[in-house]
Amino acid sequence: MIDGEWRYDVEQIQSDETGEFERDTTSFRDWIAGTRRGPDDVVEDGPEPEAGRYHLYVSYACPWAHRTLLTRALNGLEDVVSVDVVDPVRKNEGWEFAPEKPGCTTESQYGYDFLREVYAEADEDYTGRVTVPVLWDKEEETIVNNESEEIMRMLDTAFGEYATNDVDLYPEGYREDVDDVIDDIYPVINNGVYRAGFAESQEAYDDAVADLFDALDQWDETLADQRYAAGDRLTLADVAMFTTLYRFDEVYHTHFKCNEKRIADYEHLWGYLRELCQLPGVEPTLHMDHVKNHYYRSHPDVNPSNLVPVGPDPDFFAPHGRDDLPGGPPTDLA
Amino acid sequence: MIDGEWRYDVEQIQSDETGEFERDTTSFRDWIAGTRRGPDDVVEDGPEPEAGRYHLYVSYACPWAHRTLLTRALNGLEDVVSVDVVDPVRKNEGWEFAPEKPGCTTESQYGYDFLREVYAEADEDYTGRVTVPVLWDKEEETIVNNESEEIMRMLDTAFGEYATNDVDLYPEGYREDVDDVIDDIYPVINNGVYRAGFAESQEAYDDAVADLFDALDQWDETLADQRYAAGDRLTLADVAMFTTLYRFDEVYHTHFKCNEKRIADYEHLWGYLRELCQLPGVEPTLHMDHVKNHYYRSHPDVNPSNLVPVGPDPDFFAPHGRDDLPGGPPTDLA
Repeated sequence: MIDGEWRYDVEQIQSDETGEFERDTTSFRDWIAGTRRGPDDVVEDGPEPEAGRYHLYVSYACPWAHRTLLTRALNGLEDVVSVDVVDPVRKNEGWEFAPEKPGCTTESQYGYDFLREVYAEADEDYTGRVTVPVLWDKEEETIVNNESEEIMRMLDTAFGEYATNDVDLYPEGYREDVDDVIDDIYPVINNGVYRAGFAESQEAYDDAVADLFDALDQWDETLADQRYAAGDRLTLADVAMFTTLYRFDEVYHTHFKCNEKRIADYEHLWGYLRELCQLPGVEPTLHMDHVKNHYYRSHPDVNPSNLVPVGPDPDFFAPHGRDDLPGGPPTDLA
Repeated sequence: MIDGEWRYDVEQIQSDETGEFERDTTSFRDWIAGTRRGPDDVVEDGPEPEAGRYHLYVSYACPWAHRTLLTRALNGLEDVVSVDVVDPVRKNEGWEFAPEKPGCTTESQYGYDFLREVYAEADEDYTGRVTVPVLWDKEEETIVNNESEEIMRMLDTAFGEYATNDVDLYPEGYREDVDDVIDDIYPVINNGVYRAGFAESQEAYDDAVADLFDALDQWDETLADQRYAAGDRLTLADVAMFTTLYRFDEVYHTHFKCNEKRIADYEHLWGYLRELCQLPGVEPTLHMDHVKNHYYRSHPDVNPSNLVPVGPDPDFFAPHGRDDLPGGPPTDLA
């Protein structure tokens, strides 16, 4: 959008002059009071955490939105933070509400048809891309934040008294490592698959895919004797890693041409991914039908036919074999 | 081409009204005298087999052309039938000669720049697609045949006295089975990958990919205790099967969305493919650089970015483990 007006061209994939995909930064960056933003950084001023006050707009397809849904589920915040789900297929009008489609909802706050209307409700002169996730403040009627990493930190650390699970995904003693992992994996893994898939030059693609598989190779080694991404405890680093790995074999491998290996070809990454899928609360956040429909049917520049491939259909619920490693999931995970 | 004039639109992929890919039949269908066309059918009238008289136009990328190269190599006809190799990337002018590119040649007979000129030389009113392989008769200055299955039968059965290997790929006692295999695998495997990749409806794709993987599943079972496609002897059925399997993991799996499994995921098909790669004479016919460049850079409707994926890079020369099965390669294979 530019000055509150919908502009399809602005929503399009952007590459720099070397053909390298550049993700725009998100625009709403407020913080809920009490959020632990970093090891020694707790937010003092900001809207208060409250049950029923906040609302998430997500796509089940989107790995960034999935982070926030997963943090909400692991903390047991389903009754505290409400959720609307967009149509997985994004067309020229951007993310859209299509309650008639399986797993999709209405826009519950205003009855809008398009997510861009929510952005315009928050800022009638909004300029920027219309993305998910969005954390909405029902009281102030505005967007608190639309950056997934920050939303997951808020949901994990600011809502402790409302959470039904006593789960801390940003625990003392692990925080620096969690931050390091999240920072390290973003350019090469989480955004790395997009850098490969949306590259506009062979060189940009080659660089992206080399970075990606170097990182996956290293993580497979690390996870051979380390249960989770930041050590023996489940943390936000796992949430950040998970949503890319989950989509890898069915989508990124084919659609984004990340086809050197599948996650299922990595012994330890694959066991790790399976364990995370099997944690209590995670399965309801998994919607591979939305994931596949989104990618293969929303990128005409990558997949003009709109055909959705059959895919390898990995068995995410096969035994994961990780129980002998030190550590384990939070005991309070219901 | 229509009436000898180049028409780019005519060369384009054709689908029927249900979105199903339909391959046009080829146009030049003469036979060299002495060819065994079927179990009880030897060609009597036709141009005589001679050393130096015939010439092949191929693309190293094309699985149909690869069949003819492979038959020529297995029979040891390299000095009997000459070969020109086109640029693997097919652009708006169709198959083109680009001797400056690695592995490519000039058009040796007339110095033409485009393969369509060869077709027009054979028939100035030619109407049809300009495809490889082409078997050219230097004496009559015309195309004998441009149908891969028929060319491989000619090269295997009509040139016995010129072949340096005493190899018979259409041997007595196997002929019916060879014909059955070739007929059976064409629609579901050889052309099946194209039916998947060029489908213009989800239903046509789904049908193609189901047929393809049903067939591959069955062949994996068959090849568990059967060394070659038509039994314990190497035959033309293996030639026909091979050229699709060789391209599968690097191209069809990603580019044509045949991503339920890779050939490397099938124990027996994968061992079978490796054994065929390792037969004497086969390696010089393998040009994966041409294969990948062709598919990913010649189909803007499928891969608009023209990016060539890194691919799984299968090790076709790892031990194949097939030596304990009954039968084996022809002993005269040099």
